[in-house]
Amino acid sequence: MISFLSISPNSDFSTHNLPFGVFKSKQGGAPRVGVAIGDYVMDLSVLDDAGLFAQTSFARQSIFGQSSLNAFMALGREAWRAMRNTLQNLLGADVPDLRDNAALREAALIPKSRVEMLLPVEIGDYTDFYSSSHHAHNVGTMLRGAENALMPNWKYLPVAYHGRSSSIAVSDTEIHRPRGQIMPPDAEGPIFAPSRSLDFELETGFFVGTGNSQGEPIPIERADEHIFGMVLVNDWSARDIQAWEYQPLGPFLAKNFATSISPWVVTLDALEPFKRPLPPQEPAPLSYLALEGDSTYDIHLQVTLQSERMAAPQVIARSNFKNLYWSMNQQLAHHTVNGCNSRTGDLLASGTISGSEPGSRGSLLELTWRGTQPLLLADGEQRRFLEDGDRVTFRGWCQGDGYRVGFGEVMGKILPARQP
Amino acid sequence: MISFLSISPNSDFSTHNLPFGVFKSKQGGAPRVGVAIGDYVMDLSVLDDAGLFAQTSFARQSIFGQSSLNAFMALGREAWRAMRNTLQNLLGADVPDLRDNAALREAALIPKSRVEMLLPVEIGDYTDFYSSSHHAHNVGTMLRGAENALMPNWKYLPVAYHGRSSSIAVSDTEIHRPRGQIMPPDAEGPIFAPSRSLDFELETGFFVGTGNSQGEPIPIERADEHIFGMVLVNDWSARDIQAWEYQPLGPFLAKNFATSISPWVVTLDALEPFKRPLPPQEPAPLSYLALEGDSTYDIHLQVTLQSERMAAPQVIARSNFKNLYWSMNQQLAHHTVNGCNSRTGDLLASGTISGSEPGSRGSLLELTWRGTQPLLLADGEQRRFLEDGDRVTFRGWCQGDGYRVGFGEVMGKILPARQP
Repeated sequence: MISFLSISPNSDFSTHNLPFGVFKSKQGGAPRVGVAIGDYVMDLSVLDDAGLFAQTSFARQSIFGQSSLNAFMALGREAWRAMRNTLQNLLGADVPDLRDNAALREAALIPKSRVEMLLPVEIGDYTDFYSSSHHAHNVGTMLRGAENALMPNWKYLPVAYHGRSSSIAVSDTEIHRPRGQIMPPDAEGPIFAPSRSLDFELETGFFVGTGNSQGEPIPIERADEHIFGMVLVNDWSARDIQAWEYQPLGPFLAKNFATSISPWVVTLDALEPFKRPLPPQEPAPLSYLALEGDSTYDIHLQVTLQSERMAAPQVIARSNFKNLYWSMNQQLAHHTVNGCNSRTGDLLASGTISGSEPGSRGSLLELTWRGTQPLLLADGEQRRFLEDGDRVTFRGWCQGDGYRVGFGEVMGKILPARQP
Repeated sequence: MISFLSISPNSDFSTHNLPFGVFKSKQGGAPRVGVAIGDYVMDLSVLDDAGLFAQTSFARQSIFGQSSLNAFMALGREAWRAMRNTLQNLLGADVPDLRDNAALREAALIPKSRVEMLLPVEIGDYTDFYSSSHHAHNVGTMLRGAENALMPNWKYLPVAYHGRSSSIAVSDTEIHRPRGQIMPPDAEGPIFAPSRSLDFELETGFFVGTGNSQGEPIPIERADEHIFGMVLVNDWSARDIQAWEYQPLGPFLAKNFATSISPWVVTLDALEPFKRPLPPQEPAPLSYLALEGDSTYDIHLQVTLQSERMAAPQVIARSNFKNLYWSMNQQLAHHTVNGCNSRTGDLLASGTISGSEPGSRGSLLELTWRGTQPLLLADGEQRRFLEDGDRVTFRGWCQGDGYRVGFGEVMGKILPARQP
């Protein structure tokens, strides 16, 4: 697709992508819905006001002058597609509406440096899965030994737990090291202290666009229609707090102090060319989890770390979304099969996406094997877990032929624990 | 307190109580905020429009013409108290404003039989604790034996997990038996079937009125100021689904199909006369969990069950809120001590409230000891777990001298699993 805008082939935000987000101008003003294109944010409320969406069913309904994508997401997949097609057309080299209207271009195409990205979605319930067999195997091996690494249920159902919505923050939010109860080895009782083993978890997540009523599961064949799009997720984790608190009901304060997400939501339509077969599932899934055809995506994932002393970030892990054992369709079908209702804005995250190679592990817990094999950084520093001042950045992208469909990044910088 | 209204001493809704809820008229119309008083629902939006709240700071701000209590809750404890004092004054036998205004009484005091109660709060995050030592001991004994019943962390921190907000429903909502993966004894793999061990859990919950910012914990001394009030909670649980899915990340589909709450939120101010000392805590809690003075409440709790064949409900358990080991203040202080933010409308539930006696156990799992000691019902039926058609009702009340501060009830009827 040739556009009148010049877009680098390495840009995450080609005309093939057109992810949705919420931004506000650094000069002030209300939040609005935008689309990332090259080095610009395209203000959809300006285009709507100018009448450029007149042929859609949702024109001039204040869908884009809002502080979240929820109203747009609730319209359903036909509307998402109509919007995408409309925008691809408007950006075309041979379409004059925007190309030849300098005043409108000036108002609608805002350089990225002039905007602040906000949380894109008003998030309802947040669920975190545990869908990488490599990650589950690594963690299980550390806790129970290689022979009992995977619980008996793991290959029958996509294990998940409910997470905390209130503390989900957009990229660039600084993360204070949490305090909590920690049980030191051989101590008689726990101490209350800042976490000493703060970690990241490399994940992706998807937003429910249109939900289901209580009691009416989403059949796996229709799951795609309900999924609006994907973001990168950093599920910050305090391993020492987790180790002490998590039995028998799962992680709680070890994770709910903060979760970071990338600001741009990449739609399933944009990801469609990168659909790939799911890895073989053995035993075969029960019928409510069985789906013919491709259902995972070839999304490259990368983790960088930069300490306060380092001049540049260093890549410490490379993984891929297709390393996951369970698909998003399976996750959503499973989540609702008992009648649980989902709503516009619910976030379902993948769990840590580790691959089979040591360099593809998606957490420091795994990369350093519980701190026993420290990472050596370029400036000579070592890392078992995160130190104050560390900046952790995830990137994700699909590589097309001469273009990318990318996620941008989710970055978080670790600050010292606050004084109580 | 003598009112011009005649209120039975056995009514849950004396002038000492004045719980808040959201209702709509059975004849139609928009949802509004009301207060329960005797056999009436008092429409606060009507009283506000009539100028009776003129002396408050929030008069005529459309706080009460809403479909949730959230706007009122966000005003903070001073406003909650001002409202309560204003209403108690208005209801007084010697105050003419409402007493002598027949048209206003007619408009504002609606017989309960003419209203439908709605979910009172737009719930943000929902957290479920595990704060009864008797319950934790009973369940732990079944799973691991009496000597290892409580996990090592249990007496150091109030164990909790995140629950599902979307499926929280108000009393009288019918509950379809969930389907899910179940691992039969000695089977090679799980089956997909309706739950065969559906259960209730007798709980209470409290709503956060005013929250805390991310990174700024609520000190235990100030927790009471953030708590708006309490409801009864039935944490429906499918034991067979739970047994197969819950390791290692906790309960998920076994609980998130439905949770029922009572419609009236009883404020801490109304509960104040029933404050009692917390049971002894040994070991002494860490300092962030330590609080001088009384911090639990004497709230009688009762469970009845009525099958389709039974002519009347039968009491199957009697418990009390003061059976809990951890207080609400401790729960909220713990929840936020890592910097996790809470928001207006968050719900924090107690976990099953079992006492030390067999008749005070708050779930069928415990009452029938995993189904091994079936309950005998009055009509000769037996119960291991819930059957289709069963109606489960919780009641809760504080007994004053000639009056009650009660919660009303939360009722749910079990319907057969829906056809997939």
